Amino acid sequence: MRGEIIAIGNELTSGRIVNTTSGFAAHHLFEAGFDIYAMHTIGDTPALIGEALKRALSRVDFVLVTGGLGPTDDDLTTEAVSEALNRPTMPNLDLLYQIRAHLQSVSGPVVSPLEKLAWLPQGAETLKPNSKMSGFQLIHNDKPIFFLPGVPHQMRTLLIDQVLPRLATWYKERQLAVCQRVYKIFGKSEMEINQETKSLKLGEAVEIGYYPVFPNVHLSMTVRGSDTVTVQNIFDATCDIVEKKMGQYIYGKDEESMESVVGALLQQTGNQLSVAESCTGGLISHLLTSVAGSSSYYLGGVTSYANSMKTALIGVSDSLLQEHGAVSREVAEAMAAGMREKSGADFALSVTGIAGPDGGSIEKPVGTVFIGLAGNDEIQGHHFLFSGTRYEIQRLTAQTALDLLRRYLLR
Amino acid sequence: MRGEIIAIGNELTSGRIVNTTSGFAAHHLFEAGFDIYAMHTIGDTPALIGEALKRALSRVDFVLVTGGLGPTDDDLTTEAVSEALNRPTMPNLDLLYQIRAHLQSVSGPVVSPLEKLAWLPQGAETLKPNSKMSGFQLIHNDKPIFFLPGVPHQMRTLLIDQVLPRLATWYKERQLAVCQRVYKIFGKSEMEINQETKSLKLGEAVEIGYYPVFPNVHLSMTVRGSDTVTVQNIFDATCDIVEKKMGQYIYGKDEESMESVVGALLQQTGNQLSVAESCTGGLISHLLTSVAGSSSYYLGGVTSYANSMKTALIGVSDSLLQEHGAVSREVAEAMAAGMREKSGADFALSVTGIAGPDGGSIEKPVGTVFIGLAGNDEIQGHHFLFSGTRYEIQRLTAQTALDLLRRYLLR
Repeated sequence: MRGEIIAIGNELTSGRIVNTTSGFAAHHLFEAGFDIYAMHTIGDTPALIGEALKRALSRVDFVLVTGGLGPTDDDLTTEAVSEALNRPTMPNLDLLYQIRAHLQSVSGPVVSPLEKLAWLPQGAETLKPNSKMSGFQLIHNDKPIFFLPGVPHQMRTLLIDQVLPRLATWYKERQLAVCQRVYKIFGKSEMEINQETKSLKLGEAVEIGYYPVFPNVHLSMTVRGSDTVTVQNIFDATCDIVEKKMGQYIYGKDEESMESVVGALLQQTGNQLSVAESCTGGLISHLLTSVAGSSSYYLGGVTSYANSMKTALIGVSDSLLQEHGAVSREVAEAMAAGMREKSGADFALSVTGIAGPDGGSIEKPVGTVFIGLAGNDEIQGHHFLFSGTRYEIQRLTAQTALDLLRRYLLR
Repeated sequence: MRGEIIAIGNELTSGRIVNTTSGFAAHHLFEAGFDIYAMHTIGDTPALIGEALKRALSRVDFVLVTGGLGPTDDDLTTEAVSEALNRPTMPNLDLLYQIRAHLQSVSGPVVSPLEKLAWLPQGAETLKPNSKMSGFQLIHNDKPIFFLPGVPHQMRTLLIDQVLPRLATWYKERQLAVCQRVYKIFGKSEMEINQETKSLKLGEAVEIGYYPVFPNVHLSMTVRGSDTVTVQNIFDATCDIVEKKMGQYIYGKDEESMESVVGALLQQTGNQLSVAESCTGGLISHLLTSVAGSSSYYLGGVTSYANSMKTALIGVSDSLLQEHGAVSREVAEAMAAGMREKSGADFALSVTGIAGPDGGSIEKPVGTVFIGLAGNDEIQGHHFLFSGTRYEIQRLTAQTALDLLRRYLLR
């Protein structure tokens, strides 16, 4: 079963906004066993929308169209589709009454541009009754076409709740078995991983891909076939081999992130963490707290951008700062120890460094970073020299600090 | 002058990685006066690559191809192009000698898969001599085609340094004048902005677009024409009208972000800031320190995820926490006051709230947020109720806190 994705919007072709919804849709469709033949991004131009849709219908089994369904003047998808497929628009009465009721409840009787949302191409079925931004579905020449709003969170919800189940039902007789896993690797380059997995001589049924996703590399493994049991067996055996070869460089798989893996390890071991950040300016803390439930193992931390904050909040002594400079192994260790003591956590991480673009010297160039780790019975200080933009150095530092803790907890 | 962008990689069509490079390229090409007719994302399938390239060449003036140029086995772009355009690959000797010299210097004489990078389609010119990942250019049927690596930072550098100047030279006789600005707005919905700008009756030469970019809305204004002076005059007049209408809801324009605008205001007024964060977990601090040079006005902050940290680090009293709860106006104000005092900063922001998905109650549902702002002679506490996912609530909270400070500094 093969589909195409068409994303519509001048904001996308002009690059004012990066299209993230097509990738999201492709990911979930792929996981559900559908292949994406191509994805297109085009402007709010009716002729182009019609042409792209008709070409897609000529070569694939289903089409997903996103964007251009809103109430404003530059939203032209519905009109374009109506024209291209020769299906005049007509009001969906349920939707129209609902919009009018909503408007009346908030501002009395008015004629609003919102009513435009109720006019759909002939034959359209709304995906989610009782919702203004429900998107709609058309069956054209026996192929389903789904139209979803371009606003990411609306599109995502409708894709998961409506499109995937509808497609699965539509193609319930499909027989392809697929197993897929993405290993997330930190600390090895794409080429190193390519060379190492090549030496494993995996079977022909196994498709391998390598994708640098800064600061990590993703190694994807896909096994396809017609027999579910055979596919699963090959897949399991391959996973074992790859995991043995890569060892602790694999920090997670599929939806896991470094911060979710570290969080799970802290939870399993019953440990709590605090963090003192200088050059990463809150990034480590932000990553840790982006995980739901992180309050059970993360106590908080300090962003000590100025020296005075290192002294006032976590008791790094003035004399240590004077003697070694704020960017030094000694200060990193003192930050970790001070943070651990102040917070009462089992572990504290600390980072101090020069993220650039300015502030470097010959002795301590931009990218110089010290990471401290204070635990029960030891304090470690590590020295790194990263390269890249300000953001890249901050991100590499955060990932390395979390990875140090991960490897420590796995010991 | 019109172009198409083709991004290649199974990692993109399977959604394992979101394609950000096409949007980046579209943005810069658009700013340089080129229109993007369409963007395509396809897998590492030679036949599909050839077909997409030939179709693009049949309808636009130039093509940008990204991805699939690396040394690993799944990089197939060069072979596909060679086949599609009937240009056999041959070694680029400069590139080959350079790769061999590099390899010899690091590991002695070896045969390496890196040598694959030196084999290019007949007629190809490398974009940047003396670089392994230089990308290349072909002129086919008098139309330029640019091939760039898919790795974002390599692609971005080559686009800016090589492709844009080469295209400008190629089309130096183009005569279209373009003025464009994007206003960044926080606190109004796309539809409100649409209605308000509609009432302005802007001229026909002015193209307006509205794009929700969570948590903001971008309002883009484009004026095109053949006469530079006329275009500039219309553009300037329109900017005045729009700025008057939107007032302080416009927080920035073009490349500006809320955090860069707040940073500039702090710098101009000679003020320093510190931040105490609970439910945002370091996000505000991370946003502020993502701006280069932020150390001159940002002192640092505290992420007090646990109550004990609010007490230990910024002196919020136990009794206050007991009486009002951690999520309260009183605690937000005490956090801001304590943070300001501890840090010695002119201003301190604080946030405390419930980001979800768990932890809400009937009195304080998920999305309840209090923001404190402590300045020279006053302490403010504000109450909000946001909705959305954990990330959305965190992001809305951070943006609102920074916007409160921005409006305060503008008074």
